[in-house]
Amino acid sequence: MTDTTIDPSPDSAPPEREPGGRAGRRGRRGRGERPAHVVQPAWKQPRNPYRPVEIVSADQLEAIHEASLVILEDIGIEFLDEEARAILKRGGARIENGSVNVHIDRGMVDEAVARAPEKFTMHARNPERNLEVGGAWCLFCSVGSAPNAADMEGGRRAGNSTDFINLVKLAQTLNAVHALGGYPVEPQDWHPSVRHLDGLAAIVTLSDKVFHAYSLGRERIVDGLEIARIARGVSSEELDAQPSLFTVVNANSPLRYDKPMLQGIMEMARRGQVAIVTPFTLAGAMAPVTIAGAVAQQNAEALAGLVLTQLVRPGAPFVYGGFTSNVDMKSGAPAFGTPEYMKGALLGGQLARRYGLPYRSSNVCAANTVDAQAAYESVFSLWGAIMGGANILKHGAGWMEGGLHASFEKFVLDADLLQMVAAFLEPIETDADALALDAIREVGPGGHFFGAAHTRSRYKTAFFSPMISDWRNYETWAEDGRPDAYGKANRLCKQLLAEYEPPPMDPATREELEAFVARRKEEGGVPTDF
Amino acid sequence: MTDTTIDPSPDSAPPEREPGGRAGRRGRRGRGERPAHVVQPAWKQPRNPYRPVEIVSADQLEAIHEASLVILEDIGIEFLDEEARAILKRGGARIENGSVNVHIDRGMVDEAVARAPEKFTMHARNPERNLEVGGAWCLFCSVGSAPNAADMEGGRRAGNSTDFINLVKLAQTLNAVHALGGYPVEPQDWHPSVRHLDGLAAIVTLSDKVFHAYSLGRERIVDGLEIARIARGVSSEELDAQPSLFTVVNANSPLRYDKPMLQGIMEMARRGQVAIVTPFTLAGAMAPVTIAGAVAQQNAEALAGLVLTQLVRPGAPFVYGGFTSNVDMKSGAPAFGTPEYMKGALLGGQLARRYGLPYRSSNVCAANTVDAQAAYESVFSLWGAIMGGANILKHGAGWMEGGLHASFEKFVLDADLLQMVAAFLEPIETDADALALDAIREVGPGGHFFGAAHTRSRYKTAFFSPMISDWRNYETWAEDGRPDAYGKANRLCKQLLAEYEPPPMDPATREELEAFVARRKEEGGVPTDF
Repeated sequence: MTDTTIDPSPDSAPPEREPGGRAGRRGRRGRGERPAHVVQPAWKQPRNPYRPVEIVSADQLEAIHEASLVILEDIGIEFLDEEARAILKRGGARIENGSVNVHIDRGMVDEAVARAPEKFTMHARNPERNLEVGGAWCLFCSVGSAPNAADMEGGRRAGNSTDFINLVKLAQTLNAVHALGGYPVEPQDWHPSVRHLDGLAAIVTLSDKVFHAYSLGRERIVDGLEIARIARGVSSEELDAQPSLFTVVNANSPLRYDKPMLQGIMEMARRGQVAIVTPFTLAGAMAPVTIAGAVAQQNAEALAGLVLTQLVRPGAPFVYGGFTSNVDMKSGAPAFGTPEYMKGALLGGQLARRYGLPYRSSNVCAANTVDAQAAYESVFSLWGAIMGGANILKHGAGWMEGGLHASFEKFVLDADLLQMVAAFLEPIETDADALALDAIREVGPGGHFFGAAHTRSRYKTAFFSPMISDWRNYETWAEDGRPDAYGKANRLCKQLLAEYEPPPMDPATREELEAFVARRKEEGGVPTDF
Repeated sequence: MTDTTIDPSPDSAPPEREPGGRAGRRGRRGRGERPAHVVQPAWKQPRNPYRPVEIVSADQLEAIHEASLVILEDIGIEFLDEEARAILKRGGARIENGSVNVHIDRGMVDEAVARAPEKFTMHARNPERNLEVGGAWCLFCSVGSAPNAADMEGGRRAGNSTDFINLVKLAQTLNAVHALGGYPVEPQDWHPSVRHLDGLAAIVTLSDKVFHAYSLGRERIVDGLEIARIARGVSSEELDAQPSLFTVVNANSPLRYDKPMLQGIMEMARRGQVAIVTPFTLAGAMAPVTIAGAVAQQNAEALAGLVLTQLVRPGAPFVYGGFTSNVDMKSGAPAFGTPEYMKGALLGGQLARRYGLPYRSSNVCAANTVDAQAAYESVFSLWGAIMGGANILKHGAGWMEGGLHASFEKFVLDADLLQMVAAFLEPIETDADALALDAIREVGPGGHFFGAAHTRSRYKTAFFSPMISDWRNYETWAEDGRPDAYGKANRLCKQLLAEYEPPPMDPATREELEAFVARRKEEGGVPTDF
């Protein structure tokens, strides 16, 4: 735990300027306009009231499902872990002698689908932060696994523990972020042998929200489970009965699972914890160039992960992850928030519902800076996720550049987008008072509603109030130095970090956590070959 | 027609710089990277394959409908035109002596709903640009009625004919724009007595797409109809049988229609032309602070317009317009692309479908500059429009600042958003070749699809290729001066204007058009008191 040494402001990053003279614009901002406290809606897990979009017909859906079964039965999936293959073989899979290729028949798929839960609860160390997964419930995660971080002043730099800690603090402070979706940035200054110990200990100390552990072999998951157990103050048996940790694995598409991720999801399943299996099917690269083909492959890979987890422990909580996007066929660069991405998100959701599985999608973009592109790609991906009925939104706040950097400003801007989405998910009231006939009668033709009693009684909470959007008139805005959303997010980010308050933690819990981390570090953490 | 004197680049605007040193960034752009020709998808009117979102239950929808009937029957709507009142009275409306307040009963509403067409065709002077309205068809209009224009170099300035002409050229050049939705910016240097003559003559000369005329009294509509007739080369009888012009009126909410707009929609209906009636119901200002109340009022006002047009001419093409948004309750400033706006857009669509009427929504934002806010508010409004089943999208390209300025850069950026939406509306193929089992088998576990025959045969057209999005890797992008989407749109805009080609026009048509405009100008146009 090194948080006490951290400057709460990203200003502590090197003062290098982005080219283009933005510093000049910055100089005009912030004079006395900082509100006393950043105002945001209270913590609340949203429910999605909208019927998800069905992007294909029932027949088309069955054609995709059938194609996935052909992949599983005839082509096969490689499982690069002996134990996983043994479990699958015992469960009825066909594996030729000496092969790593596993053929799973439709009966095994049906059985796994029948065993997996439609809904479950994820338990946080603060029970008020518990999260429902499945049905109409939505939850939004912070960005995960970016190798770099960036902010306006410091530019883009390799991931480090200072940025890691500050991004965790943002995730804790912003109510629109419901869970920590992995390391927001890779803390590369923490050695990989102990990174998971320092990283997860920092996350459970700086935050009281549900969190994620990486499936990089069995030991890191075992350590993550112990950290989750200590933080919650429960027994191992209680932990095993209450999902409290989640892991995301991206199959090594096409058609392969590597050993570390298989060890991770097996250990998670064994302990009744949550595996989100998300094939990384970029159409045209790791998957067919067609959306239907890429999603058929995604579906086969996800179902293979489902079968394994349900053989390890029937009823283990499982989330169907969709991440199909496309590449730029001119350069091979991955693209996100594209029309193809949106269709993939809708189709993934339709398949997950077919199987009665909770669905995971993402808030993604390929932009290098927090500009209009970053925003439109993100909102297009939110459109696909929400209309696709996603239950878990990964990378909800902070993701940039196809995941290659986490941005402080984008984190705050995304949190505002997520708040807007949550407000959009609040049902419309249509009772007599909401229909407002008395107010319409009172105001009458040509009148104005500002002063009406109906308005006065509701105006404070009637509308969502964004953090970022600048609705001032042009003249006032121009006099204030023409701030853009990027600059406003930069200021807000600093204020949010300054306002960060660590969630309370019982001293005994803190002591137990520190002792565990110290012991495991003494043992060398998880051995690495460097 | 003054287009021949116009510099095709917005550089011709004053070289004033926006504060913030963007010029320094601009300086790094554009060296040899301008493509030979801006590549965009071919002209095509999209169809929306998605089932629209039902935001309220059938019972709630009826409650809103009933509230609207109470407004129409009991509270009444003011019609500030004697002829309109006479028509409504003959149709069964109740008007007390000396009153302008009109009470319309539910029977009149039912009759009007039964008479109005669910679908119709709008005819352009180029038949390839004809547009279907209703059902699953969508069409996207350019920004309309902005009093100011802006671009990166010239900043924001009062609307003028140079900007007007350049924006019309952009609307013609960009295939994602299907119709001219009014003056993209108000050409304030053309006197109001003849502005409609110069403006509409410029539009039908510079463009061959469907266009709009303002309901600012009867005479301007009569002139607009004659210009549409001449441009199409048809007789008055043919014109009357074929919708070729549309008008949008915003009721003077709450509960009032003024004389010029009533004269306009009556003349349009009489001639079988298209009235899009769109109450301007900003919740908390011109309408109740609740979404249900604001939309109930919107619905009453729109239905009142429907009743009038259907009394004037049963079967006259009518479009139900929704524009409900909210204001910032702290400042009274209008807000757009908000969660409340999205809900209003969905609810408006659900009501329009209840009545079997085509539905109009918009692509709007309140941002002052082309930043992340402009993009996220726009995409949120597109989300509401598309998922609300909108048939006509007004202000599809170029709208900024709550409609107070048309932006050249936003115009191009929006056209890219519209192209992305159109690509999103293309159905997914699921035939055997699209399912790609052979390719998946060929590539196998751990392989790569770039070189697969399936990929090679499809890669050129597999994915939508955006104009603006920058998918280059960070290093290449940084070396190129870190261009943002705003800057890229600025460069593209200049290129598009340079590439503008006037659509062919028969010399006799041009002569007839010029003669008509000259004669009407000699007559003084439409008299004004200034």
